[in-house]
Amino acid sequence: MNQERLAGLLKNIVVEEKRILTDKVDLYSYSFDASFGVHLPDIVVQPKQTNEVAAIMKLANEQAIPVYPRGQGTSLSGGPLPVNGGIVLDLSKWDEKLDVDHEDMVAVVSPGVLTADINDAALKFGLIYPPDPSSSNVSTIGGNLAENSGGPRGLKYGVTKDYVIGLEVVTPEGEIIRTGGRTVKNVTGYDLTKLIVGSEGTLGIITEATLRLFPKPQATKTMMAVFDDIVDSGRAITRILSSGILPSKLEIMDNGTIVAVEEYEPLGLPTDAEALLLIELDGHPVAIEDEIQRVETVCKESAARDVRVANTSEEAAELWRARKLVSPAIVREKPTKISEDATVPRSQIPAMFKRLREIREKFKVDLVVFGHAGDGNLHPNIIADKRDEEEMRRVEQAVEEIFEAAIELGGTLSGEHGIGTLKAPFMEMELGEVGLDMMKRIKESWDPNNILNPGKIFPKPGQRLVLTNG
Amino acid sequence: MNQERLAGLLKNIVVEEKRILTDKVDLYSYSFDASFGVHLPDIVVQPKQTNEVAAIMKLANEQAIPVYPRGQGTSLSGGPLPVNGGIVLDLSKWDEKLDVDHEDMVAVVSPGVLTADINDAALKFGLIYPPDPSSSNVSTIGGNLAENSGGPRGLKYGVTKDYVIGLEVVTPEGEIIRTGGRTVKNVTGYDLTKLIVGSEGTLGIITEATLRLFPKPQATKTMMAVFDDIVDSGRAITRILSSGILPSKLEIMDNGTIVAVEEYEPLGLPTDAEALLLIELDGHPVAIEDEIQRVETVCKESAARDVRVANTSEEAAELWRARKLVSPAIVREKPTKISEDATVPRSQIPAMFKRLREIREKFKVDLVVFGHAGDGNLHPNIIADKRDEEEMRRVEQAVEEIFEAAIELGGTLSGEHGIGTLKAPFMEMELGEVGLDMMKRIKESWDPNNILNPGKIFPKPGQRLVLTNG
Repeated sequence: MNQERLAGLLKNIVVEEKRILTDKVDLYSYSFDASFGVHLPDIVVQPKQTNEVAAIMKLANEQAIPVYPRGQGTSLSGGPLPVNGGIVLDLSKWDEKLDVDHEDMVAVVSPGVLTADINDAALKFGLIYPPDPSSSNVSTIGGNLAENSGGPRGLKYGVTKDYVIGLEVVTPEGEIIRTGGRTVKNVTGYDLTKLIVGSEGTLGIITEATLRLFPKPQATKTMMAVFDDIVDSGRAITRILSSGILPSKLEIMDNGTIVAVEEYEPLGLPTDAEALLLIELDGHPVAIEDEIQRVETVCKESAARDVRVANTSEEAAELWRARKLVSPAIVREKPTKISEDATVPRSQIPAMFKRLREIREKFKVDLVVFGHAGDGNLHPNIIADKRDEEEMRRVEQAVEEIFEAAIELGGTLSGEHGIGTLKAPFMEMELGEVGLDMMKRIKESWDPNNILNPGKIFPKPGQRLVLTNG
Repeated sequence: MNQERLAGLLKNIVVEEKRILTDKVDLYSYSFDASFGVHLPDIVVQPKQTNEVAAIMKLANEQAIPVYPRGQGTSLSGGPLPVNGGIVLDLSKWDEKLDVDHEDMVAVVSPGVLTADINDAALKFGLIYPPDPSSSNVSTIGGNLAENSGGPRGLKYGVTKDYVIGLEVVTPEGEIIRTGGRTVKNVTGYDLTKLIVGSEGTLGIITEATLRLFPKPQATKTMMAVFDDIVDSGRAITRILSSGILPSKLEIMDNGTIVAVEEYEPLGLPTDAEALLLIELDGHPVAIEDEIQRVETVCKESAARDVRVANTSEEAAELWRARKLVSPAIVREKPTKISEDATVPRSQIPAMFKRLREIREKFKVDLVVFGHAGDGNLHPNIIADKRDEEEMRRVEQAVEEIFEAAIELGGTLSGEHGIGTLKAPFMEMELGEVGLDMMKRIKESWDPNNILNPGKIFPKPGQRLVLTNG
């Protein structure tokens, strides 16, 4: 259908005409995300009511037009890309509702609310919303829900899915359903809430979510431990966790990351160290004072050559600054960052580091590793220049081998970034033919016309990894 | 198919003939669970290998014979009942594997392992398996997984589903798949793990599970608070939770429960009190010493007339004895216990207590209330005699009104017991026609011949609640 006719039909649905975008310039800004590929939609709609979304989905089914829900477009895996053209639903403007109920310890939110704003609203009641993807200041909760976003606090507090207890959802065929509710315990039928969260916008469009909040920890404490041998740092992690202490964050930076940050901004980091752990404890102030000493002892016994404990919140912020600078630091030399999130069982972290080192040498790529070591969720990042086709071919091969290594070590393709378009070619490698088929059966039974976010998660026959914008 | 022919076909699949049961006496012991209804299966098989289960499911599809997986049969909602005859798969004998990996902090288990045994095995490594359904000494992990069992520790630690990161599953059509894995973070495709856990054995047969373990809390502390007004106890709960303290258990007993326990075994409980809270804190010893004092202060400020803090583990056990005796105490006068688990948002607990009081008076039933107040998961229990048909009709009406009240107050039919046969008639009341249909689509796409555990969750047209064994 041509754009003009489609716009005419959508005007009967959407209350304000200005929420229908047809200009080429507007369409272009919805053609990409934070991963790879440029795909122009035919039209963009900014719905702000559940009924609008339902009517759009009914229209889309009648006319066989693909629909792609989208938040702020920070996806690292291609989740919101309009790969077959059609309608982009920009839900980021729909941010009116952010209701905290401190008695029920829940927040009820519209899909366009920024994730960090939920935590800020909760803090006024002495509560927190624990999931903390590093994009939380710019990404919407709707996007976080679609992708089941993680973050450093995942080790102790879990991921987005662990905090969602109820949803309002528009089905692919345009019906409105409510899943779950306001109670933490609910075993009434299949758990559609946890099925839809993390389904990357392929099973429904989330128009409202009810999220659990938690009491705010009374205090936090941060330390840094420096290791000459990355295997020792892995051993330290295991010992900390089996000593009855569960840190709120446990991050690792490898030598390449340390050097990049130190070159970017001199912080006095040990550029000859093989690994650096950043550890945060939270809880009762007396308890974490005691626990931080025990963590220090464990690190020293595990051959840490240096341990620094922050005594003030300023000192803690200083230690975390190293981690915060990783992303800007590593893209200084080349413009293209391929950010993976292959995840392995915790015991396999040293083996994964070894494999990553081999991959770096084999394909001669600029590969650094950092991430959430406490839960095995590493971030191998390759820095390249996407205009250099020969380099990008090597990067593609390296990424394929990273996925193979993660799966061989009992891990998974993606810990928190999602499959989207980028990792779809590798799904069968992890899930097997039948496993993937069971997922496809759900998709087909819910979206028989394949209208909602097509081209994601499920590979097309013969689909391969392509890290260019062609 | 007649039993003899079926047994013959199964002998080609099951390695040991003694694991095929055909005697009437044996079949009878698989005809009921801890809820209502007696349904004889045609045959019982005790598989101990994944391949056996897969072959049985293929045979069952070819021959259109229903199959019902079963653990120890402690279900309170009819989950394992062979309502259409056919094959019962008794998985309780399959208990060989219980491997704890303290580095990855996981346990890998066979379906027949008793839940309490997992926790015991974890304790040897300073770890715990947190979910603690009160049946944990007699129920299998397979049953817990099928029903997504809860328990008192759910308030702080969540329920069974929150600890399952990987499954081996035989699909309804007899294919073997693996979902999830050994990592806590995993966003590779749809979350089949959390879909299958809690699906009451209708979407697959779990043949192995990988469970997260947690560091064992260093210490625990218990107290009891006595209230003249149940609304005050509700206020105390909210204040405790919004003060930054998250108890590991927060249980309530109403006056009827207190009186029943005290008559059963004199413990010196206050039989004139309207409510009694039992609170357990866990964590660092110094922290919980401080926190228990703050909880005590909050309770007193919320009009608790008496607060007792246990100073030793013996005193703590003494306080918990009151809660442990509830079940034996309440069935002393009449033999039939109808144990519901309607769950409401925490703020609605006082309103739910009021509704339950009205229901008790309206239908003149022996209704007592206790349960997991911290997460709104109440256990209204009606005590009756199932041989008294007139009484059972009143009980059925009372139960219907309990469900209506829970849903009107924003809650759910079931917090932890499941839907099974008993609550199926009320599904549409909570989920609506479309919500239920979306669940049914999944079932039909996975089990097109409706072979696996038919008659559960989804109501038959016109199905009503029946609390008799007829």
